[in-house]
Amino acid sequence: MPCFDHNATTPLAPAARAAWLLASDGAWANPSSPSRAAARVKLQLDAARARLAEFLGTAPARLVFNSGATEGANAVFAHWAHTLSPGATLALNPTEHPCVLAAARAHFGDRIVWLAPDGDGMVRPGPLADLLARHGAAAVAVMAANNETGVLQPWREIADLCRRAGTPLLCDATQWFGKLPAAGLHEADWVLGSAHKFGGPKGVGFLQAAPQADGFHGQLGGAQENGHRAGTENFPGIAAMLAALEEAETSKVLFETERLAWRDGFARAVAAAVPGTTVVAAGAERLWNTVSLLLPHGENHRWVARLDRRDFQVSTGSACATGKAGSSHVLAALGLDPAAARRVVRVSACWETTAADWTALAAAFGAVAPEVQPADNVAEI
Amino acid sequence: MPCFDHNATTPLAPAARAAWLLASDGAWANPSSPSRAAARVKLQLDAARARLAEFLGTAPARLVFNSGATEGANAVFAHWAHTLSPGATLALNPTEHPCVLAAARAHFGDRIVWLAPDGDGMVRPGPLADLLARHGAAAVAVMAANNETGVLQPWREIADLCRRAGTPLLCDATQWFGKLPAAGLHEADWVLGSAHKFGGPKGVGFLQAAPQADGFHGQLGGAQENGHRAGTENFPGIAAMLAALEEAETSKVLFETERLAWRDGFARAVAAAVPGTTVVAAGAERLWNTVSLLLPHGENHRWVARLDRRDFQVSTGSACATGKAGSSHVLAALGLDPAAARRVVRVSACWETTAADWTALAAAFGAVAPEVQPADNVAEI
Repeated sequence: MPCFDHNATTPLAPAARAAWLLASDGAWANPSSPSRAAARVKLQLDAARARLAEFLGTAPARLVFNSGATEGANAVFAHWAHTLSPGATLALNPTEHPCVLAAARAHFGDRIVWLAPDGDGMVRPGPLADLLARHGAAAVAVMAANNETGVLQPWREIADLCRRAGTPLLCDATQWFGKLPAAGLHEADWVLGSAHKFGGPKGVGFLQAAPQADGFHGQLGGAQENGHRAGTENFPGIAAMLAALEEAETSKVLFETERLAWRDGFARAVAAAVPGTTVVAAGAERLWNTVSLLLPHGENHRWVARLDRRDFQVSTGSACATGKAGSSHVLAALGLDPAAARRVVRVSACWETTAADWTALAAAFGAVAPEVQPADNVAEI
Repeated sequence: MPCFDHNATTPLAPAARAAWLLASDGAWANPSSPSRAAARVKLQLDAARARLAEFLGTAPARLVFNSGATEGANAVFAHWAHTLSPGATLALNPTEHPCVLAAARAHFGDRIVWLAPDGDGMVRPGPLADLLARHGAAAVAVMAANNETGVLQPWREIADLCRRAGTPLLCDATQWFGKLPAAGLHEADWVLGSAHKFGGPKGVGFLQAAPQADGFHGQLGGAQENGHRAGTENFPGIAAMLAALEEAETSKVLFETERLAWRDGFARAVAAAVPGTTVVAAGAERLWNTVSLLLPHGENHRWVARLDRRDFQVSTGSACATGKAGSSHVLAALGLDPAAARRVVRVSACWETTAADWTALAAAFGAVAPEVQPADNVAEI
């Protein structure tokens, strides 16, 4: 049955699986070893970096392969803490992923100026420009697409105004890659990505570093990744990540239009089946795969569990925030009160999701609605 | 033809390959998601942690899955920098891996007291105890087995004396795991391991944290790994790592005796074929798979290249130090002058290496010796 929890992670794409096996079997040498076999792996690693650079429109030397976006976020804020002037403040979008928020807080504490997104969670370029002019933040972090609501930030405009202000921008594009074209992301100084969000393996990702990133190092030790990240390169993982991204970029990301219609048809169908249901951030441009539903009754865990029994996997929100259910910082930033936030269910499809899958899920929401009546007895949750 | 550069990395073990595919195909859900499929992955992840804990003799809660030993080393020194008292000094073995040395230097700079290993590179417990008594170092780092020479440190005795002194010990066991039994490593507070050194995949490893490691976090963000390391867990990589370690622990690490004889027979055969060849740290207990040969003539790059043409892969030293050839800090700590260090070739076998492979490599050293005459023309290197 169809899974609708793909913003949490994706299954391994067949092309990625094949690339991983090919590399594991034939290109397992350590690229830093002095043998010809190792030199061949090094060449393949360089080719993967060049290909990734093409997708982003960036220079290969700016790309650092790592273990994923969480590592990347931690490394960027640590770098800023070391290189920005003492007392420097950051301008931060409050709907960022927990890894960005936690790393920012650890290094900058109360030196964070929170951006005020609109009611849909969008950071408007105008107010950001004003804020930069008034506060002179030393760096900005605004994501490309939100993992809970799917809201797309106007990152092109934000990158442009940050560049003109001379302020470095971190753009967490983890939920963007593989769903929409990567082209243009070179305009942000720092960019984060994780392979497992777009059909690549878990435990591998990348960071685009700023054009001037001397002294940037995510991990110290050997001189791998142009000195930016020590540790034996995970070439099989990198090759698999590139295979997944290659497939997405060449045959998927250009075809969102039909899927936007499916997404919106799904939302209308749920609203018809469960009257009173609304879509969070309905007024914003959002990912074609993501719908954040505000249901009229029932705690989200009960919806998730009832749907799961029917083999539909949906989510209460970010997997990284599990255990803190109901406390979504994203929904709070959009002005939802905690009681409403606990009625929000995240639905996130993949490219293989069909129109029929969306229809079936909407019908399932209707079918389980009677089982998820307003809770007279909270102990039942 | 046999590869003798396995301290740089190993090919993926068939059991690890199978485990990775099984997990990638059937257990790809995000363990933090709220579905039953995700809960099953979480259970498997817990089981893998429990199994790893059995091998080390430690508590599962002390184990943190991560991207490898370089990440682990960086995280431990960052943690110490945050939690040890200001001005605290570290006692450090100078033959540690570059990731340990670089992370220590970045966080502690000149607050490092260098241990004085003996002529074979061994840290003697007695002098270390004296040093701790005199200097009162706040933490100690001594590895289990050296990546260049194979020298085994007396880590059990060192762990014991550190515990009695109340001083935390970091033991980088990256080259130990899979070659010798992991049992007992719980006696060190902090332990590092990397899967790709023992037949597991690249990009995955683990850290044993100290029994009291509140506040330790390698990466900030979600609450994964008991709050010690944020980021979606790489369960396929972890499952593959455990499969490789399981195989090593149950059918390999107890059978070193015969291989020690092969190793020493190889060294004698090279010395016979290339008179004047000696073994670095010959007097120390060393890994059964590693021989660091000091050749009587010829730069090590020339030996490596000539042997590579005959399809024998050996190394000039640590892959992590490539590009800095001839500047081995390990050999310098053993008292080798730079000219001698440039004549050192590292040979590192794997469990699949046969006695015939060792014999063939020794013969190859003899065969290429005339091609690697004393360099009249250094430009030929």
